[in-house]
Amino acid sequence: MVTKVDVGDYFHQLLHPRPTVLVVTVSRDGRANVMACSWNTPVSEEPPTVAISIWRESYTHQLLKEVPEFTVNVPTAQLLRAVMVAGTASGREVDKASATGLTLRPARRVRPPIIEECVGHLECRVVEEVAVGECTLFVGEVLEAYASSSAFDRGWRLRDVDLLLHLWGRRFAIPKRTIWARRE
Amino acid sequence: MVTKVDVGDYFHQLLHPRPTVLVVTVSRDGRANVMACSWNTPVSEEPPTVAISIWRESYTHQLLKEVPEFTVNVPTAQLLRAVMVAGTASGREVDKASATGLTLRPARRVRPPIIEECVGHLECRVVEEVAVGECTLFVGEVLEAYASSSAFDRGWRLRDVDLLLHLWGRRFAIPKRTIWARRE
Repeated sequence: MVTKVDVGDYFHQLLHPRPTVLVVTVSRDGRANVMACSWNTPVSEEPPTVAISIWRESYTHQLLKEVPEFTVNVPTAQLLRAVMVAGTASGREVDKASATGLTLRPARRVRPPIIEECVGHLECRVVEEVAVGECTLFVGEVLEAYASSSAFDRGWRLRDVDLLLHLWGRRFAIPKRTIWARRE
Repeated sequence: MVTKVDVGDYFHQLLHPRPTVLVVTVSRDGRANVMACSWNTPVSEEPPTVAISIWRESYTHQLLKEVPEFTVNVPTAQLLRAVMVAGTASGREVDKASATGLTLRPARRVRPPIIEECVGHLECRVVEEVAVGECTLFVGEVLEAYASSSAFDRGWRLRDVDLLLHLWGRRFAIPKRTIWARRE
């Protein structure tokens, strides 16, 4: 039998590496903020929804209470530095749109902008909030979903795009090798 | 400017590839069922919680209503066939514990068993349920968390373990290549 050891506070690492996305929110007066988030998941197909878990003390949390809309933007490895800035600085102290050097563009149907350099975008409206521990799980209905045609075709073209999966701290995995399950 | 195309029903693929886990639940009379699930996420650290999105018509959903506890088991690529069986058959028609050929062992603190062949385990008790579209998002408090010492040390040793990240259908990605963000 294989030895199994308690992982304690690292329990969440059992569910990594996982897609890192940039979540953009906006204040009532239109100031945008960018945050990195890997605690996300699709939730349902009909209606299309996703969930993101956001620390209650964060600026993004405050903005989601002001304007309950957000965009999810999928970065590539080329945006690694911007992802780290978005994931470590607070929008209360730093203008992260400017500190990350990312280009914000108006979204189609929500107030927060999208990030032009990213390869995928979801425009979401918060439909449910669940307070859990130090975070709130925000469930968002997906109003618009679009992606770079060179990187996505019913799924990511992993050969053409370096997605960023977060492991921990400054460490990420790039999914490249794929396998297929045999038809039984 | 890069061309961006609508992805419609494939919106969830923007958040893939993502960790596939085996969720084990149990009926009131002790019959265990195994399901594959990639719509999962950590939610909070204090208390430790995770969320899984489960289709409302599934047998796993029915069992979670009977016994609100589950185990999350992290499989490797060696278990690909079992993952496909767990992800495509229904426990109402097939004894998936037997059909997958996996070994169930008693958990420490919850009624559903764990899967011996997996490299990581979370034992969870449902603390919150959110009905969203055709699914329910079950938030579980993590009561126990442990992993194979040869595969995990505060995070996965990707060189030593082939994790299964689900892309779509029968296609998976194995995270091997890792990159580090530079310290600013």
